[in-house]
Amino acid sequence: MLYLGDTARVPYGIKSRETITRYALESSLFLLNNNVKLIVVACNTVSAVALPYLRDILKAPIIGVLEPGVQAAISGVNSNSFGIIATPSTIESNAYQNRIKELRENCLVYSQACPLLVPMAEEGITEGEIAEKVLNSYLKIFDDTTIKSLILGCTHYPLFKGTISRLLGEGITLVDSAETVAMEVEAMLLRESLIKTHGNGKVKCFITDVPRNFNEKAERFFGSNLIEVSRKNIFELNVD
Amino acid sequence: MLYLGDTARVPYGIKSRETITRYALESSLFLLNNNVKLIVVACNTVSAVALPYLRDILKAPIIGVLEPGVQAAISGVNSNSFGIIATPSTIESNAYQNRIKELRENCLVYSQACPLLVPMAEEGITEGEIAEKVLNSYLKIFDDTTIKSLILGCTHYPLFKGTISRLLGEGITLVDSAETVAMEVEAMLLRESLIKTHGNGKVKCFITDVPRNFNEKAERFFGSNLIEVSRKNIFELNVD
Repeated sequence: MLYLGDTARVPYGIKSRETITRYALESSLFLLNNNVKLIVVACNTVSAVALPYLRDILKAPIIGVLEPGVQAAISGVNSNSFGIIATPSTIESNAYQNRIKELRENCLVYSQACPLLVPMAEEGITEGEIAEKVLNSYLKIFDDTTIKSLILGCTHYPLFKGTISRLLGEGITLVDSAETVAMEVEAMLLRESLIKTHGNGKVKCFITDVPRNFNEKAERFFGSNLIEVSRKNIFELNVD
Repeated sequence: MLYLGDTARVPYGIKSRETITRYALESSLFLLNNNVKLIVVACNTVSAVALPYLRDILKAPIIGVLEPGVQAAISGVNSNSFGIIATPSTIESNAYQNRIKELRENCLVYSQACPLLVPMAEEGITEGEIAEKVLNSYLKIFDDTTIKSLILGCTHYPLFKGTISRLLGEGITLVDSAETVAMEVEAMLLRESLIKTHGNGKVKCFITDVPRNFNEKAERFFGSNLIEVSRKNIFELNVD
């Protein structure tokens, strides 16, 4: 498994559709040039903004995190009201909102952009007074709604699960797409006869920058299982 | 006057020395290729991390914001204790701390990295409860010191002046380098006989991305005087 983190250009979720699409294409081409057979776009912003474009022009199967998140949110939920929090670019794309409304006619979708949560997660500020104040200001739009599930529409947001649960109280399920994405990857590999049936897998991590507290951050997300990390300058100088 | 904002890759202050230096070089080459006669590195992170490198390899005069900020901080201040807040990369470079200690032997420099302030400024969260809580957590290290001046070591931070003043109380001067930089530019242009002596100037803005609320943000910094803005994709695809 090749993992590419574009740490030299993060965060994506505050940038334009055009720039996000360009970055997503560059990252995908890097992976394809390294012979991957399937790409998981493990980022909600890219999934919401650039996935149709990537699928249009690239032949390899590409799995985003939006559809699995939507499926997880609507399966087994009776309510017709859904909540979603995500980056500004994801919310403004309306990709989640449109997809949910396609699958559940006449439902209500309440959405809130949370621009500070990615930088806070990167700094480890996921609980305590500051996290609560910021989350409170973002979550108050759900107060007078009847949502029963809230989609955590950004891969950083599950780190806030504890604080969000406490603030929203019981009765609202927090949905992230991690497990449903993994299941979709397996299903797709089986369907396309691409699955490896013997031997052990290996993880190789590429990052485009080594930010100051990278190891600490990586452990926050991956645990201490990082096997190999290389810094890869995939985006070179080109000045006119 | 050509202004280049690398909005497609901001923020810089959480990235590595190597990546910041590469971005600074690319941006400088873009400006030089557009025939500027002098470059102002109007970013504390780049000034702290990459200025010696840029001066080493580029012939044009280059003015950073660090030295003017330091001069403004020490001039007319009797205290031997100085405070500085800046991005993580600026603080970790020790450039401010070392320069102040060079000019004021045996002084004390207290420094604090404030990673959330740039995203907060970009979102317009510069006062109110959240801004105060976050600033309080960053400023508490100055509580038991005798600093008389605090350097706002990031071009975003003057937007927090009101809140910082209120939190620190009277008796601590907030220093930013805006005016001293402008004076240094004029002095340098005179010294190098590069100054334009007739006609009116013009401002041309280039940005590498158009972020979602660009006009609103630009007005927060520049007022409503933006004359011309072009989106310029100066960093092209190059994948191996």
